[in-house]
Amino acid sequence: MIILKLPEEVQHWALNTKRRGQRIAFVPTMGALHEGHLSLLREGRRLGDKLAMSIFVNPLQFGPAEDFEKYPRDEPGDLKKAQTCGVDVIFAPSAKDIYPGGFQTAVAVQQLSMPLCGAGRPGHFQGVATVVLKLFNIVQPDIALFGEKDYQQLKVIQKMVRDLNLPIQIKPMPIVREKDGLAMSSRNTHLSPEERKAALAIPTALQKAKGLATAGETDPKTILNAVVATLTESKKIAIDYVSLCDPETLEELKVLQRPALLAIACFVGKTRLIDNCLLK
Amino acid sequence: MIILKLPEEVQHWALNTKRRGQRIAFVPTMGALHEGHLSLLREGRRLGDKLAMSIFVNPLQFGPAEDFEKYPRDEPGDLKKAQTCGVDVIFAPSAKDIYPGGFQTAVAVQQLSMPLCGAGRPGHFQGVATVVLKLFNIVQPDIALFGEKDYQQLKVIQKMVRDLNLPIQIKPMPIVREKDGLAMSSRNTHLSPEERKAALAIPTALQKAKGLATAGETDPKTILNAVVATLTESKKIAIDYVSLCDPETLEELKVLQRPALLAIACFVGKTRLIDNCLLK
Repeated sequence: MIILKLPEEVQHWALNTKRRGQRIAFVPTMGALHEGHLSLLREGRRLGDKLAMSIFVNPLQFGPAEDFEKYPRDEPGDLKKAQTCGVDVIFAPSAKDIYPGGFQTAVAVQQLSMPLCGAGRPGHFQGVATVVLKLFNIVQPDIALFGEKDYQQLKVIQKMVRDLNLPIQIKPMPIVREKDGLAMSSRNTHLSPEERKAALAIPTALQKAKGLATAGETDPKTILNAVVATLTESKKIAIDYVSLCDPETLEELKVLQRPALLAIACFVGKTRLIDNCLLK
Repeated sequence: MIILKLPEEVQHWALNTKRRGQRIAFVPTMGALHEGHLSLLREGRRLGDKLAMSIFVNPLQFGPAEDFEKYPRDEPGDLKKAQTCGVDVIFAPSAKDIYPGGFQTAVAVQQLSMPLCGAGRPGHFQGVATVVLKLFNIVQPDIALFGEKDYQQLKVIQKMVRDLNLPIQIKPMPIVREKDGLAMSSRNTHLSPEERKAALAIPTALQKAKGLATAGETDPKTILNAVVATLTESKKIAIDYVSLCDPETLEELKVLQRPALLAIACFVGKTRLIDNCLLK
């Protein structure tokens, strides 16, 4: 496993790799790896001749009041985990090598960036799209893997790839959960033991919604009310949004058509967590 | 010479070409080829193993009151000229294949798009950057050639390539002029014989400015006044802007440092023409 810091070193490796006819699989991360990331790496290992991973906590996708400084970082741990998954190249750039002085280019996937997390985090998905496009151009992957926990991010990236004619296959990967159902997230480490317990209301609410949908409920309001009721049983949870929406356009649904995306974002204490599931 | 209409056909050709280790040179055009374009094609022929050219009048870079419908089109003539320059692949897509339903991704090179033509044509350079990035992803060039007549466009593209880490060399090519000095432009065909004569004030004004700079003039106002006076001798000319600016940032200069860019945009009758030169 080699660790590279400079964009030009990685691009040089990537272009040479492709010239030899080898396929590059790529997993972009912000580090603080958990089993969710590792599932992407293992699948990437299976799909690519070479497997590249990036570790970059992207300042552009954090708002001024958000947790950029406090975002969990664990580079030594990340490198060990990456090695066990057979990563060939780690790209761990500095912010100034990604955004040198005078940087001024922005990529926006416009409509898909507006609802859900985009409403409360203006500029977030523009930051995501811009850095992911840069990473794609540096790493030159044939296939890139993204987790479905960040569902809106996945849709933004898929749309960017189609709209900009990038010759890259995007492979969505299922949410990986703790044994008790909480979706894996680097931010889970911020939770106190009490908050960790309270956070279980999120997967519980998703399960409740699935139950209602399976039982034939077609009114979005009934489902959303049940989700909100479950989440607000705990005083530690403050809802950012709960949305039942079209899984492709992310537009709010007025009638439950299937499949529908149920997406949740809430603060558990000061920690913002997201989760989602498809109702079929 | 093969003519392809679909993005996926061109990308397939491009990826196969690169897999064989061949270098692709690329000249994006809006058609209505003149000697300026042909100079780019001849240089591209020299630099690439394969030479690709696109013909696409990009609706995204025209404002609602601009000349998208009237922009000169001459596909049969273009194909003949391209063939004499040794073009291997022509990419001539339809607007709906470049911007299919639901298209929503925008690329903006922010500061460089604001002054000069950007001030009078809001959205123009976002349209340019977006389509050029798409064309680059489709054609996969190693080198792309752009004329210096569209100087701000050249700077926007160079900045986009650096900011987004595209592995593409941008080759600027000098302005090609008619014998009497008028810069070649597809839009010159719109000029009446009288307007064609009046338009000569543009290169004349540039020459006057060069003369002043060579004679040691350092006050931008003196130079700009001389340019404006020369242009407004004809009643057929309405100035859009005359600017003496930094050739890299395009910021207006308060003191003449060298090299400086002198950029002119004006309407000759209803036809908008641009031209520029460096004062050294």
